[in-house]
Amino acid sequence: MRDIEGLGLGRSRATGGFWAAKADLVSREMLRHQWEALNDEVPGAERSHAIENFRIAAGESKGGFHGTVFQDSDVAKWIEAASYSLARGPDPELEARVDEAIRLVAAAQRPDGYVDTYFLVAAPDKRWADLAWGHELYCAGHLIEAAVAHHASTGKGSLLGVARRLADCIDAAFGEGPGKIRAACGHPEIELALYRLWRATGEARYRDLASFFVRERGRDPGAFVDKEPLGFDIPKTKAFRADYFVGHAPARDLREAAGHAVRAMYFYSAMADECAETGDRELLDALRELWDSLERRRMYVTGGIGSQAQGERFTVDYDLPPDTAYAETCASVGSAFWASRMTAIDPDGRYADAVERAAYNGALSGVSLDGRKYFYVNPLESDPAVAAARADLEHVMPRRVAWLGCSCCPPNIARFIASFPAYAYGAGGDAAWVHQYVEGEASFELGGSRLSLSVSTDYPWFGEVRLRLGLAAPASFALKLRVPGWCGSFTCSVNGRPLGPAELPVERGYLGIRREWRGGDSVVLSLDMAPRFLRAHDSVAELAGRLAIQRGPLVYCFEEIDAGKGLHELELDPEGPVEAEFDADLMGGSVRIEASGYRVTRERRDGPGSPLYAPYAGDRERRRAVKLVAVPYHQWGNRAPGQEMRVWLRSARPL
Amino acid sequence: MRDIEGLGLGRSRATGGFWAAKADLVSREMLRHQWEALNDEVPGAERSHAIENFRIAAGESKGGFHGTVFQDSDVAKWIEAASYSLARGPDPELEARVDEAIRLVAAAQRPDGYVDTYFLVAAPDKRWADLAWGHELYCAGHLIEAAVAHHASTGKGSLLGVARRLADCIDAAFGEGPGKIRAACGHPEIELALYRLWRATGEARYRDLASFFVRERGRDPGAFVDKEPLGFDIPKTKAFRADYFVGHAPARDLREAAGHAVRAMYFYSAMADECAETGDRELLDALRELWDSLERRRMYVTGGIGSQAQGERFTVDYDLPPDTAYAETCASVGSAFWASRMTAIDPDGRYADAVERAAYNGALSGVSLDGRKYFYVNPLESDPAVAAARADLEHVMPRRVAWLGCSCCPPNIARFIASFPAYAYGAGGDAAWVHQYVEGEASFELGGSRLSLSVSTDYPWFGEVRLRLGLAAPASFALKLRVPGWCGSFTCSVNGRPLGPAELPVERGYLGIRREWRGGDSVVLSLDMAPRFLRAHDSVAELAGRLAIQRGPLVYCFEEIDAGKGLHELELDPEGPVEAEFDADLMGGSVRIEASGYRVTRERRDGPGSPLYAPYAGDRERRRAVKLVAVPYHQWGNRAPGQEMRVWLRSARPL
Repeated sequence: MRDIEGLGLGRSRATGGFWAAKADLVSREMLRHQWEALNDEVPGAERSHAIENFRIAAGESKGGFHGTVFQDSDVAKWIEAASYSLARGPDPELEARVDEAIRLVAAAQRPDGYVDTYFLVAAPDKRWADLAWGHELYCAGHLIEAAVAHHASTGKGSLLGVARRLADCIDAAFGEGPGKIRAACGHPEIELALYRLWRATGEARYRDLASFFVRERGRDPGAFVDKEPLGFDIPKTKAFRADYFVGHAPARDLREAAGHAVRAMYFYSAMADECAETGDRELLDALRELWDSLERRRMYVTGGIGSQAQGERFTVDYDLPPDTAYAETCASVGSAFWASRMTAIDPDGRYADAVERAAYNGALSGVSLDGRKYFYVNPLESDPAVAAARADLEHVMPRRVAWLGCSCCPPNIARFIASFPAYAYGAGGDAAWVHQYVEGEASFELGGSRLSLSVSTDYPWFGEVRLRLGLAAPASFALKLRVPGWCGSFTCSVNGRPLGPAELPVERGYLGIRREWRGGDSVVLSLDMAPRFLRAHDSVAELAGRLAIQRGPLVYCFEEIDAGKGLHELELDPEGPVEAEFDADLMGGSVRIEASGYRVTRERRDGPGSPLYAPYAGDRERRRAVKLVAVPYHQWGNRAPGQEMRVWLRSARPL
Repeated sequence: MRDIEGLGLGRSRATGGFWAAKADLVSREMLRHQWEALNDEVPGAERSHAIENFRIAAGESKGGFHGTVFQDSDVAKWIEAASYSLARGPDPELEARVDEAIRLVAAAQRPDGYVDTYFLVAAPDKRWADLAWGHELYCAGHLIEAAVAHHASTGKGSLLGVARRLADCIDAAFGEGPGKIRAACGHPEIELALYRLWRATGEARYRDLASFFVRERGRDPGAFVDKEPLGFDIPKTKAFRADYFVGHAPARDLREAAGHAVRAMYFYSAMADECAETGDRELLDALRELWDSLERRRMYVTGGIGSQAQGERFTVDYDLPPDTAYAETCASVGSAFWASRMTAIDPDGRYADAVERAAYNGALSGVSLDGRKYFYVNPLESDPAVAAARADLEHVMPRRVAWLGCSCCPPNIARFIASFPAYAYGAGGDAAWVHQYVEGEASFELGGSRLSLSVSTDYPWFGEVRLRLGLAAPASFALKLRVPGWCGSFTCSVNGRPLGPAELPVERGYLGIRREWRGGDSVVLSLDMAPRFLRAHDSVAELAGRLAIQRGPLVYCFEEIDAGKGLHELELDPEGPVEAEFDADLMGGSVRIEASGYRVTRERRDGPGSPLYAPYAGDRERRRAVKLVAVPYHQWGNRAPGQEMRVWLRSARPL
């Protein structure tokens, strides 16, 4: 029941603007730096050992395993990201590294197809013995995803062969048949990887195995709980109950976005894949309710998800503390995986809105502008001096770092950025869908016609998107352009003629222009980019009386470098003047917003001897009018790392 | 250098009003209930086993030790509280229980004076081997305090003998001499107990041993760190570094209230005792700076202290989150111990203000109005539905419980309440000092005169305090009446004649009336009790833009039972009308405050489908004017346990 088929990177590429620059950053900086990190060549960075683990497993080096039990997946995600990068154009040095990594993986693979360096090196007699925490199938899934990407980008079958043998090994071991292991993996990933492998190879066994894992999860709610991990140290708290593993109920009975945020996103993605294959309405109903739960009650304004550090997980509806937020980079990336799959089975702009929200905010914030430093968590409020002292803020990093002991996020954000153009378009229902506005080229098959689309835009800095259609012969179809949920008004013209109100039907988030199109036709969509003051739902206790600023898809934040220390003393005036200006010198090009507000202070000047509590005196002279400079959230911490930052300020007006 | 000598319970008693009722509650309910709990006779309550531990150690019962390593101290503090209760008047049943407890302690004591049931029963070969975590000297200290109280109240020497033998045992083992252990205990308590024993017995060795422990602490900052506890499970985090034990620096070098809040309060108390003995100015300077640190930068408005659960400890200046607050009952009680000692060496009303703040708010909140249920932590904001899901709120109890696995607080609050009249008065510097306003009787020795003071008041509900002096002959001295820091204005009359402005000199927080007093003289002090709206220092990020209400010494709070769910939606208007009214039917008599404000809500009515983030629209109809009912904080959670509560509401006016 897939209504919209996404265009892969082979048919969608960024050629300029924001995303081409980011893709270049991935090629030039991130992948090089990450390769060095995986090879332990970055001075001062946390040790990875991930490549060395493969060398040891392959018998090419001596020593013990080091790292998390899922260290292999860092290499797999790096290969996947590198493959996307290679799809943009040749890069012999990068390709050689990819080939070397694949050679090592293949060398480590056992004759029966099994490969997982933790279990091969550190726990050789424990294969499939720690499904709750061992991450074997998770690592296998990432290897399979990398293989599909590698094959699609390079045409080489080197890793795809490894992946098929590994999938066959898993298929031989798991399932409902006699002598097979009837169980899923504590961390979902294998499911969506197997769907992807099926689509790449046409081998139905992989689809059936994926479907088995989707159906198996949650059958026995006790399957993952209170299991003794082999290579993990997990506190026995309620943060790690069955829902942490998304194992508390069968897929079709899920209704609330719950548990470990990344696990949840990956599994809901797999559910959406399953739904696309089977057309299962019950599963679609469950997915829609899960989506409502996420989007309406459990997501930060930045697209970050997971409200607490312990269990890196969801808590309860409307519990969205900005300071203790977890909002792991991987979870935002995972939400885009899920949202893009929802677009395919339930065409509605809300899903692409969420891809956009995550991409431009809570995901991109995970990497520094130079591509060499990373956040693991992405809080909406940071005061490093307080965080340094407080146990409940221990997960909050004051600044991005070169690498992490658990480094799942760096290669994940790399593969997400490098593949972003693949999220931009879809074909289906006699329509060409434009979900994301990316300067570049795309080509569609629409019935009998081949449509090429050339997009030119300075999005997200400016709201004008210019599209030019290439068609060999005139063709009738709808061009569906997403009108983002944040957009208050827009205009659109076709071949220079502005469309009137009656010609601008927006249905489920998309403006549909249905006509007979001809080659050379042009469309210009202009989205209003005026900064908007946002408030949160009244049930979000932590944000009562607070405002944030969003402009276009970008959520903004306030930084100490602009406003000085004590950001909690600031009040934002939503009725004051607000200006937005592009500054080419600001962090390589950015739109700075200047808003109006106040700083409320007195004692700070008087030093630490002032009384801690004082009677309200209505003394307005404590409020000093100030201009408040805001910058895009995803760029925070780049100018002066280790300083205060806030997305939500108190409102100077009643809300 | 003790400037003011406190009056013990033998010379100060509550005869009516607030504190006599509380003392009756201790006698009638708390001590009975606690005795049952210590004997594991409270159905459904957490197991204590504390009495049984003594039986086993005494050879009168078989079985293993159960409980925390400091379980003995629950029994000791209970005996101390019971002794204070017995000072009020005969209670044969209670006295029999006290005698039985003392008999068991004595039976468990070894011939050399040692007694500690954890080490006797569970770790017999480990005596003094786990000073960091073993709490042996801490338990000894509580036993000694109990013994001094018991002897003073009953004249019996049964426990005092046990205590002296125990102190002698410690004196033989610890000190700077050859063959002695040169080390302090991970939890201060022995120090102040030994000072107390010295004052009760005149035995200088006890004073010297106390002084040794005060000087020893912090000499080796590594003394307590990373030690493997025998009977404890402590996470290896930075919450448990040297300052947790108040062992990071020698006493005279301490400047910031830091570490585990209870340990800090007990040790600063011991420092004050040492200072009173020695007149050490350096120590006094350190104590004053520590006090500034506590009172001006690290104390909740309720007198609660300790901003975080992990390590039950202080964090950094102005870090006072109302929801994750620890604010352990014991820490508030401990702050009163310290403050009262500061009063003696540095006469200033700020210390008695702090005793009052803690007593009427963050300490009393620890026990239910029926005297049978307890909080361990006392947050300033509670939403049980959120707390149930969040790891960083795991310590927040939704309701008071009958007993706790770690039950240090129940007997601590009992001994504090039962001894509160002892905090009310002081004699010194040719003056009779009235620190606290307690309906009752007190007798002073002032030079050659004996002054009896009869106090009648409905404090803290009403601000009038009527004092009548009893003197055999006229005498010249100053009557020093504390004018609380919260009090904006007051009047005073002597023998019916109002004093004029020139006759009302307030010096360091005390109104001093110096004259020749005669028997029968009467003084009436009237403190203005108008409710006050308080704001916090601008540096307290969590309280920016928020207000609390205080009336007299009582901090108020808002409860769901009055205001409905969603207390974060409320705004308090400090310029609106506010009324306070005594209601005899409200929780056994209380002053209810009705203030003005708003409820800001819309989506709550629209259900969970409303957008999570919406543009600011300046739509004032979201604000609905409401009357806001507040009740004293210490009474919260008594009418409908398990509901929302908040001390600080958002202000409807700029602050």
